[in-house]
Amino acid sequence: MATSADKYIVSRPLYSEDGFLEVHEKVHRRHKSTLDHVIQFFMSDSKRVKNAALSLLPFISWMKIYRIKEWLLGDIVSGISTGLVAILQGLAYSLLASLPAWYGLYAAFFPVIIYFFLGTSRHISVGAFPVLSLMVGSVVTRLVPDEGLIPPVNITGFEGLTIGEQRAIVSASLTFLVGIFQLAMGLLQVGFIAIYLSDTLVSGFTTAAAVHILVSQLKFVLGLQVPGFTGPFAIINILQRVFSQISSTNLHDLVTAIVVMVVVFIVKELNERFRSKLPVPIPIEVIMTIIACGVSYAFNFKENHNVDVVGKIPNTFEAPVAPNLQIFQETAMDAFPIAIVGFAVAFAVAKVYAVKHDYVIDGNQELIAFGASNIFGGAFKSLAASTALSRSAVQESTGGKTQIAGALSAIIVLAVTLAIGFLLEPLPKSVLGAVVIVNLKGMLMQVCEVPYLWRKDRPDCFVWILTCVASIFLGLDLGLAVGLGVELIVVVFRTQFPRCSVLANFTGTDIYRDRKDYINLYEPEGVKIFRMPSPIFFANIDFFRGKLIDAVGFNPLRILRKRNKALRKIRKLIKNGELPFTTKTSNDTSYFHTEDSEDDGNMEDLDQPVDFSDLPIQVNWRSELPANITVPPVDIHSLVLDFSAVSFIDISAMKGLKTALKEFIRVDVAVYIVACDPYIIEKLKSCRFFDDEIRTSIFFLTLHDAMLHILEVNPPLSVCEKVYNKHGNLLNGNSSLRSRDIHNQRPETRF
Amino acid sequence: MATSADKYIVSRPLYSEDGFLEVHEKVHRRHKSTLDHVIQFFMSDSKRVKNAALSLLPFISWMKIYRIKEWLLGDIVSGISTGLVAILQGLAYSLLASLPAWYGLYAAFFPVIIYFFLGTSRHISVGAFPVLSLMVGSVVTRLVPDEGLIPPVNITGFEGLTIGEQRAIVSASLTFLVGIFQLAMGLLQVGFIAIYLSDTLVSGFTTAAAVHILVSQLKFVLGLQVPGFTGPFAIINILQRVFSQISSTNLHDLVTAIVVMVVVFIVKELNERFRSKLPVPIPIEVIMTIIACGVSYAFNFKENHNVDVVGKIPNTFEAPVAPNLQIFQETAMDAFPIAIVGFAVAFAVAKVYAVKHDYVIDGNQELIAFGASNIFGGAFKSLAASTALSRSAVQESTGGKTQIAGALSAIIVLAVTLAIGFLLEPLPKSVLGAVVIVNLKGMLMQVCEVPYLWRKDRPDCFVWILTCVASIFLGLDLGLAVGLGVELIVVVFRTQFPRCSVLANFTGTDIYRDRKDYINLYEPEGVKIFRMPSPIFFANIDFFRGKLIDAVGFNPLRILRKRNKALRKIRKLIKNGELPFTTKTSNDTSYFHTEDSEDDGNMEDLDQPVDFSDLPIQVNWRSELPANITVPPVDIHSLVLDFSAVSFIDISAMKGLKTALKEFIRVDVAVYIVACDPYIIEKLKSCRFFDDEIRTSIFFLTLHDAMLHILEVNPPLSVCEKVYNKHGNLLNGNSSLRSRDIHNQRPETRF
Repeated sequence: MATSADKYIVSRPLYSEDGFLEVHEKVHRRHKSTLDHVIQFFMSDSKRVKNAALSLLPFISWMKIYRIKEWLLGDIVSGISTGLVAILQGLAYSLLASLPAWYGLYAAFFPVIIYFFLGTSRHISVGAFPVLSLMVGSVVTRLVPDEGLIPPVNITGFEGLTIGEQRAIVSASLTFLVGIFQLAMGLLQVGFIAIYLSDTLVSGFTTAAAVHILVSQLKFVLGLQVPGFTGPFAIINILQRVFSQISSTNLHDLVTAIVVMVVVFIVKELNERFRSKLPVPIPIEVIMTIIACGVSYAFNFKENHNVDVVGKIPNTFEAPVAPNLQIFQETAMDAFPIAIVGFAVAFAVAKVYAVKHDYVIDGNQELIAFGASNIFGGAFKSLAASTALSRSAVQESTGGKTQIAGALSAIIVLAVTLAIGFLLEPLPKSVLGAVVIVNLKGMLMQVCEVPYLWRKDRPDCFVWILTCVASIFLGLDLGLAVGLGVELIVVVFRTQFPRCSVLANFTGTDIYRDRKDYINLYEPEGVKIFRMPSPIFFANIDFFRGKLIDAVGFNPLRILRKRNKALRKIRKLIKNGELPFTTKTSNDTSYFHTEDSEDDGNMEDLDQPVDFSDLPIQVNWRSELPANITVPPVDIHSLVLDFSAVSFIDISAMKGLKTALKEFIRVDVAVYIVACDPYIIEKLKSCRFFDDEIRTSIFFLTLHDAMLHILEVNPPLSVCEKVYNKHGNLLNGNSSLRSRDIHNQRPETRF
Repeated sequence: MATSADKYIVSRPLYSEDGFLEVHEKVHRRHKSTLDHVIQFFMSDSKRVKNAALSLLPFISWMKIYRIKEWLLGDIVSGISTGLVAILQGLAYSLLASLPAWYGLYAAFFPVIIYFFLGTSRHISVGAFPVLSLMVGSVVTRLVPDEGLIPPVNITGFEGLTIGEQRAIVSASLTFLVGIFQLAMGLLQVGFIAIYLSDTLVSGFTTAAAVHILVSQLKFVLGLQVPGFTGPFAIINILQRVFSQISSTNLHDLVTAIVVMVVVFIVKELNERFRSKLPVPIPIEVIMTIIACGVSYAFNFKENHNVDVVGKIPNTFEAPVAPNLQIFQETAMDAFPIAIVGFAVAFAVAKVYAVKHDYVIDGNQELIAFGASNIFGGAFKSLAASTALSRSAVQESTGGKTQIAGALSAIIVLAVTLAIGFLLEPLPKSVLGAVVIVNLKGMLMQVCEVPYLWRKDRPDCFVWILTCVASIFLGLDLGLAVGLGVELIVVVFRTQFPRCSVLANFTGTDIYRDRKDYINLYEPEGVKIFRMPSPIFFANIDFFRGKLIDAVGFNPLRILRKRNKALRKIRKLIKNGELPFTTKTSNDTSYFHTEDSEDDGNMEDLDQPVDFSDLPIQVNWRSELPANITVPPVDIHSLVLDFSAVSFIDISAMKGLKTALKEFIRVDVAVYIVACDPYIIEKLKSCRFFDDEIRTSIFFLTLHDAMLHILEVNPPLSVCEKVYNKHGNLLNGNSSLRSRDIHNQRPETRF
C-alpha cells in the first residue's frame, strides 16, 4: 500500500482529547499546594539547619579539600600580584567616588576578609568596582557638595568636619546600607533577580558607566577644578564646566597623563598579543605609577607646578564608625540600585569562573557574603565592594585557586597602606585618572555589539541603546531602572504580537504549514485552520480575535445579529400572514418576543443564539431567504485553532477566548482546538470555561485528528467529490506536483 | 494490516526539515523592511491624506447617516437626562478635586463641545470622572495647600489671589498639560498602550480609587475641616486627622448625609430590581438634591447650623487663561498618569458601547479627541475630562444614539449654570459627598473578584492585590506605576518558568506525552525527549539548561572534561610505554599537546571536543578503560528537544542554546530539535547558529519523524531486540495493557 520510500507509517485510532483520556488513564498526580510547600519547609527542618549552617560558611568545604602542595604556591603568587593591582585600583577608584584616596584601599582589605569566610566563589577579587564607586560618588557629591555649594540637607554630626571627612562618613553609611539590603535579599532568597540583568542590559549599562567614568576623570587628567554634579543630565553640566575651563588646563597634568596612557596602552596590547609567550603579564600600571611617583617627587610637581597629588595617606586605620541614620534616610533610594549592581556584577564574574573551574556558586549565599562584607566594610569607612573584572582576571590568571589568594592580597594592601603608604604621597592624581581611562577600553568597545545586535535581534538592540542612553543622560540608577523596564516590555512585546497564520495541508500527509509559504497546499473547503504561536493573555487577546476574524473573513457577531434580525422579520411576516407557512404548533404566547417594533430595539437579544423554537420552520441560512431578507453567507463549517505553541492562557484571555468561540459556535461554525497543552485544558476546566455551547469535545490530540474528524462529521461524500474535483483541477493545472504525493492517497488520508 | 477501528492512517516519507525543504519548495516571501514601510507610508500619501482628514472629523461620517425620525427624539431625551446628572456630578466631583464647585460644571460643557466633533464614540458622556478628579485634587492640594501650610513652590502670578482661584489655575494648567500629552500620544499613534491596563489592573486600581474617594468625602459628610494631604501614605494622615476631630462632627451635616445616602441607596436598588418595568430610572439623586436645597434654604443651614454649602455660583463664564508654564514644570510627572488613566477609562467604556452597537472606535482618534478637549477645557479652567461610567450609562440607556445627546447635555449644563445656578447655592456639601459615596458601591464591590481570582489564577490575583494596596497607600499615580510593573513582571514570570517535561511514547502510535502522567508509556532506551513549553530568552536560558541536565541525568560539560582528562592520562601512558599499543602512525610532533604536567593545568583545552587524531587508538567510552581510569558513563545516544511551544528565542538564549547543544554533541549525544517554528529556524540561520558541530540537519518535522530517524541510525536490530524484551516483560507484568496497541505494531511504528 505504501511505497518503499515511505518510512513514516502510522495507523492508530482517531483521538479527541476526551476519547484519548477514556482509553489512556492518566496517573493522578497531586500537585503540591502552597501549604504543602510550607509544611515541607518546616518538616525537613533539622537536616535543613545543618545544611544551612554548612552552606553559610562555604570556606569550610574548600578548606577540607585544599591541596597545599599543588595550590598554595599559585595562591601566594596570585595574592601578591592581585594585592599590587588592588592598591592602585583602590587609589584610583576612590577618586571616582570623590573620596580621599585611601578609602579605596580600605575596600581592598575589610570586605575581602569577610568574603573569605562567606563567599562561594574561589576566584573573584573582592574590592572596589569602578561603576559602583561612581554611583557612590554621585550620592556623596549630592549630600556633601564641593565648597561654595550649599548641601541640600544638614546632617547632624557634620559640624567641624572637613569635606573629605564628611564624605567618608556618607560613603561609609551608604556602604553599610548597601550591605543591609544585600544581606536582606540573601536571607529572603531572592538571588535569582540577577537573571533579569541580561547580557544586553549589562553591556549597555556598563558602556554608559564607562562614559561616565571617562567624563569624571577628565578633570584629573586636565588638572581642573570641577564640582561634582548629580541627578539627570549631570554629565552635560560636567562637560560644560570642563570645556568652559579648558584654557586653564594644567599642562604638567595633561602631559603626564598622556605619557602614562600611551605607554600603558601599548604595553597592554603587547601583553595581550604575546599572552602565550609571557609567564605573567607585565604589570605596567604598577611600574608607571612608581616612575610617576619618583618623577613627581624629584621635581616637586605639587609645589612647583600646582599638580594635584594623592597627598598624605594615614599610616593607621581609622576607628570604626556607627552608620548615620539620617544618611540612611537620604540614601535609601540610591542604596538599592547600588546593592543590585554590585551583586549582579560580582555574581556574573563569579559564574564565569565557576563554570570554568567546575564548582558551584550560590546566588543567595553570595548576596549574604557581599551583604556582610559591606556591612563590615561600611563600619570601617570602606567603599562599597563588589569585584572588578580586571582584578579578578589577574587573581585567576596568576594561578589563584582559592580565596586564600584574596586574603593574601588583602594582607599586601594592609602592609603597603600602613608601612609604605607615605611613598605614594607625591603620586599625581592625573596618573591615576590616566590609568582608569586606559582600562575603560574594554567597556567602551562594547559599543561594537550594537551593529551586530541591530542585524540579528532588533528588540535586543533597542534594549541596549535605550539602557545606554538613559544611563548616560539620566544617571546610572535611573538608567538601570529604565533599562529593566524596557527589557521587560520587550519580552512582553515579543510574546504579544506573534506571526499568526492560516495553515493548509500537504496532500497525502499529516503535515500542515502556513498556506502562504508553499504553492501546492491543499485547503479543504469549509475549514479554516488558524495558528497563534504564542501565549494568549490580556495584552493580546484582542489581537488574537482580530487576526482570527481576518483569517476567516467575516465577523461572527455581526452575522449572528443579522441572522437574528432576519428571524425577527420572518416572525413578523409569519404573524402578518405574509409568509405561506401553516403555523401548526403556534399559540399566542410564542409570539411574545416579536413585540419589538424597531429592528435595533433590543441589542442584547441579538447576541443570543438563534432560536427557532417558536418558529414553524427551520431556516437554512445558506439558501435564499424569503421576502428579500439577506444575511451574509458563512462559507466555513469548521474552524480549527492550532494551540500547539500556546504556552499559557490567563484569565482575561479565557474570557475573551470564550466569547470568541461562542460567537463562532452561534453561527453554526464548529470550533476545534488541537494540540493544546493538557495542563491548559485542566486549567480551563477548573475555571468553568466549558458550558452547554463550548464542550470539552472540541479538543483533539493533533491537527490531523481534528481534520479527519471534520471529514467524518461533514458529509464525507460530497466533500470528497468536491475534493476530487478541486484536486483534479489542481493537478491538471500544475504538473510539477510530485506523483508520490498522489500515490500515497487513501480516502482517510486525503488531508 | 490496520484494524477497522483505526481511522488515523498516515503513510508518508520521513522528513527532516532539510529533507522537507528539498521536496517542497518554499515560496520566497520578501518581508518588508523598515525602509519599505516608510516608503509605503509616503507613497500612499494622497489617499492617506484624504482618509486622515475624514477620520480626524468622525462626526461627518455619522452625521451623513443620521436618521432624524428615528434617532432625534432619543437624543433629546437622553441629552436632557444626562445634562441633569452631569450638573450634579460636576458639582460633586469638583469637591474631589478640592476646587470650588462650579469648575466641575465647566468640565460638563467645554470638553463635550470639542468631543462632539472629534470623538469616535457615539455613546460616552464626556466630562468629570471621579478618579481623575481625585488625581487632579492631589496635585492641586500639593501646589496650593490649605491655609496655614506653606506651599512647596512660589508660583509667579499667584499674588493676591484667593486659594480657590489659585487652585483653579493649577487645575486648568494641569488639564491643559494632560491634553497636550494625550494629543501628542494620539499623533504618535500610541493608542495601543491602553491594552496594558488589563481588566485586573483597572479593577484593582479603581477599587483603590474608590477607597480614596470614600476617605476624601468623609470630611464633607462629617462637616470637618481636614487639609488635603498628598504623596505616599497620605490616606493614613487624612484618616488620622478625621478621627482626631471626630468629636467636632457637625450633626446637621451627618444626619443630612445619612438620610440622603439611605434614600438614594434604596431607590437605586429598586431602580435596578424593576429595571424592566420602569420606562426610565427614577432620578433620585436629582430629586434629593432639590429637596436638600430647599430644606437647607428654608432652615438657613449655613448661618444657623454652620453647614458648609456650595455657595455662590457665578452666572458668567470666566475668561480663558493661558496655562502657567511654571505649573507645567511642577506637574509634568503627575499629568502623565492622569492622561493615561483618563484616556484608558474612556476608551474602555467606549469600547463596550461600540461592540454593543456595532460601530468602530479608533484609539488614536480618541486620544486626539480627548487631547483637544482637555486643551480647550483647560484654557477655560475646566477640570480634566474623561467619562464616568454611570453618566454614560444614563446617556445610552435613555436612548442616546449619537453625540448630539452629549452636545444637548452640554447645553443643559450651560443653561442651568448661567440661568438658575444661584438656586444651588444653599446645597450642603455633605449632600454632594453622600451622593458620591453611594455611587461608590459598584467600584468597591469589585473586591469580590479577589476570591474568584485567587482560586482561578493566582498570578492575576497577585496583580490585583498589589495594584490595589499600592494605589491605596502610595497614591494613585505611583500605585498605577507599581501595578503596571507587577503586571509586566507577571507576564515575564509566566513565560519564564514553564513546566518542563520528559516525554515518552504511546506504543504503536505517534503520540508522545509527559511520562509521569501515564503508566504504560514506552521510553526507547538511549533516547531522551525533553519538552520546554515556552519561549526561551535571557531570563530562562539557564533554567532551561538546568532542567535539561536534570532530565538527562548528567552534566555533559563535566563528562567532556573527564573524558579529556582521561585522554591526557592515556596519552601520557602511551608516551611512557605503559600501555601496550604500537604507536604505528606516531611522530614526535603529534605529542605536542601532552606537555601539560598538571591535570587541571589548562581548563580551556578540556572544553574542546575530544580529539583522537594524535592517538593510535579509538577510545570506547562505554567499555572499561585501562589503568583504572574511570569516566562516568553516558547512557543516552540521542536527545530530542520538542520545540513545538517555543514561540521565540532571543539572542542571549541562542548563545546559551548553542553552548548547551555543543556540550551534548561533544560527548557523542546526537541532538535533534523537532516541531520548531520555521521562522525560528530561519532566524537561527541568519544569526550563524550553525557550524561544523551544530548542523541544520538536527531539525525534524515532528517528534515521531525524529524518533523513526533515530531508530534507523542507531543499530535498529539490537534496539529492536531490547525493545521486544523490555516490552515483553512489561506485557507480562501488566495485563491491563490493551491488546489493540500491540496489534498495531509494525517495526517502523514501534514508538
